[in-house]
Amino acid sequence: MRAVDLIIKKRDGGTLSTAEIDFLIQGYTAGTIADYQMSAWAMAVLFNGMDDRETTDLTLAMAASGEQLDLGALGARAVDKHSTGGVGDKTSLVLGPLLAAAGLPIAKMSGRGLGFTGGTLDKLESIPGMRIDLSRSEFLTALDQVGMVIAGQTADLAPADKKLYALRDVTGTVESIPLIAASIMSKKLAAGAHAIVLDVKVGSGAFMKTLDQARELAQRMVSIGTLAGREVAAVLSTMEQPLGRAVGNALEVREAIATLQGQGPDDLLELCLTLGAQLVLLTGKDRGLSAARRRLETVLATGQAWQKFRQFVQQQGGDVRAVDEPDRLPQAAVVQPLPSPQAGYVQSINALEVGLTASELGAGRERITDPVDPAVGIVLNAAVGDKVGQDEPLLYIHAHDSAAADAAAARLAQAIALSSEPVTAPKLILDIVQK
Amino acid sequence: MRAVDLIIKKRDGGTLSTAEIDFLIQGYTAGTIADYQMSAWAMAVLFNGMDDRETTDLTLAMAASGEQLDLGALGARAVDKHSTGGVGDKTSLVLGPLLAAAGLPIAKMSGRGLGFTGGTLDKLESIPGMRIDLSRSEFLTALDQVGMVIAGQTADLAPADKKLYALRDVTGTVESIPLIAASIMSKKLAAGAHAIVLDVKVGSGAFMKTLDQARELAQRMVSIGTLAGREVAAVLSTMEQPLGRAVGNALEVREAIATLQGQGPDDLLELCLTLGAQLVLLTGKDRGLSAARRRLETVLATGQAWQKFRQFVQQQGGDVRAVDEPDRLPQAAVVQPLPSPQAGYVQSINALEVGLTASELGAGRERITDPVDPAVGIVLNAAVGDKVGQDEPLLYIHAHDSAAADAAAARLAQAIALSSEPVTAPKLILDIVQK
Repeated sequence: MRAVDLIIKKRDGGTLSTAEIDFLIQGYTAGTIADYQMSAWAMAVLFNGMDDRETTDLTLAMAASGEQLDLGALGARAVDKHSTGGVGDKTSLVLGPLLAAAGLPIAKMSGRGLGFTGGTLDKLESIPGMRIDLSRSEFLTALDQVGMVIAGQTADLAPADKKLYALRDVTGTVESIPLIAASIMSKKLAAGAHAIVLDVKVGSGAFMKTLDQARELAQRMVSIGTLAGREVAAVLSTMEQPLGRAVGNALEVREAIATLQGQGPDDLLELCLTLGAQLVLLTGKDRGLSAARRRLETVLATGQAWQKFRQFVQQQGGDVRAVDEPDRLPQAAVVQPLPSPQAGYVQSINALEVGLTASELGAGRERITDPVDPAVGIVLNAAVGDKVGQDEPLLYIHAHDSAAADAAAARLAQAIALSSEPVTAPKLILDIVQK
Repeated sequence: MRAVDLIIKKRDGGTLSTAEIDFLIQGYTAGTIADYQMSAWAMAVLFNGMDDRETTDLTLAMAASGEQLDLGALGARAVDKHSTGGVGDKTSLVLGPLLAAAGLPIAKMSGRGLGFTGGTLDKLESIPGMRIDLSRSEFLTALDQVGMVIAGQTADLAPADKKLYALRDVTGTVESIPLIAASIMSKKLAAGAHAIVLDVKVGSGAFMKTLDQARELAQRMVSIGTLAGREVAAVLSTMEQPLGRAVGNALEVREAIATLQGQGPDDLLELCLTLGAQLVLLTGKDRGLSAARRRLETVLATGQAWQKFRQFVQQQGGDVRAVDEPDRLPQAAVVQPLPSPQAGYVQSINALEVGLTASELGAGRERITDPVDPAVGIVLNAAVGDKVGQDEPLLYIHAHDSAAADAAAARLAQAIALSSEPVTAPKLILDIVQK
């Protein structure tokens, strides 16, 4: 078998066999197939696509290229969640405790923020003492004792995906739905959970700009998971405006805490309950959606979810006082309101611009090695559809100094559109894709 | 400017500017743009094409990546010919003397055979003493004194094309008409001739399998040459059967000599006169096609072309006795006929198979470093449309030993189809493309 023949086969619209895909991924991982061949193949895939079987084979080959976590001892209860990435997305911090408190163990290997999106690890590190670099045994102990653990990669999961993704990033071959689906699912399958829910973001602040694209990606991932013997569902949720109100590491932790204490923004809670209920259904714990949702609402109302979050923080070395009294979390030197230039209704909030501005303030990074400032960010005071008075703050900028705050204010003033007519708030949950 | 953005632009159907194409080729030549980016870009070009302006920019950028021969002293008379490669194609050996004798200096940098096609350099080296590794000054002196020179690359012509071609070969990106056109024309432009004729072969023994493909390639190359300020025409000629009768290095030299002495096969002479007349027209030496053709027929009839060939051989160190008495050329130990299994008409001769069999006999090579045997090859005794009697030889196999001859006979028996009904000989010249 020669790589060039497989490139030509795909280029000419053919379908690669399981053996052919294994040959490509094993060769690429071992270094016997060169970057220049894989990038040409990826471009051919971008034009000619892959069917579900090919995509599943690619996913499994990449998952098999490194370590695979065995969560078999947890049986069908082990759950995981993946979000395609958005602005203000602190879902994992709320959903994890809800699920763990409801008896569904969740072990997440998360990433850091890059570009306009934040990363769960950066958010957790704003809690003093919190460790995200756990050893394998610490990771499994935490999962066993708390039922919830979030850490950096403790295992070398899907190294072929890591290598291929880095290559796609510099060769214009990122935007292929089958390749995106295989990339996400290879890591999820290797991480070992039996039931997986995917939060596919749609809109200007998301990677998927249209509902059609997002639905195609969701269907692909659900098919792959199903063909690979897992239980998978996907929720399509809007990213036309940031999720919740807070964007920035410590600011988002505060919002997650508030939500676990029953005082968070409606959209964040609603998304967490929707994602969580799908997982409860997938594990077979409840038969109907309303029972599944009620199970999560109960652990929220009784405070069990909040207590689970505290245990989680404590288990990973975090200072529980900082979550009990969130004023102990890092705070920015300057907090500056952005007043509304007129009375009216919020017509749109450009999530991408909010994310980029928060990153510019120091909450995010351009290169993966850059440090982040845990304190800075943006807290919205109004969402799309809300009525605002003239000079009423549209949002608050948390900055290191007033020069940074002024620069952010100028940028954010362009990112929010107001209307004199009432505006309907956008729908949060756009669709649910099940097998 | 970033390479990845240019890949994405082409991927999404955009048109690259002159500056963008220069950036890619200069960066690739300098090594600042990686193979994996160029292969992804080439695949995007394969799918989305390039317009004439982009293709010309690519050609000029590749021509400018290395040395460029200045034949300006020869003015509009300097001519060149390029063939896209076929089986039994010894055109350069006949056309060169015809043109030089007619007062059109021709300086050709040629290549060696690879796969099923022979190379002019290998053919010339079957003449004892003949040197094809000329220095720059030897090359220009020969051109000046004889009006004709054929040698290996004395200059580092279009190194970007060399690098890109090697990459395309292993990444499934060879079969793009604009990339093929740019590759050929970059070397021709750098070689400095003012008037260029292109012999685009069509058929089973050629790289272009259909007339449509060949015409598209021809039009592309004529457009590029014209936009680059040269005079260019293309002849589309059939490669459904080998050109002439001989396939193999010394055998082809003998056939070229016979042709220059007025005793060669009709198709070879006709193609040379057609290509040559186009060049005479392009240089403006004659106004009409019939006058241009007559000029070449005259130098053939008077023996001036044959004398020019002798001068050419002498100038490059070859033994003139070997061309005056071709039996002094290398001869194979075994010459074995392939008898016709039945009486009838030759319906088809698979040129690709004949080329591959000659290569297997030792006339060609799989790797560019392999040696070739100058003596071996195949001489057809009948062409498509010819009537043959039972047991009459269809062809003669010139081999190193009888085992090799038997193996070739078995293969060639499958490559020739006979018919009991009369068969029309295929048309040699399929079309001529002018600006």
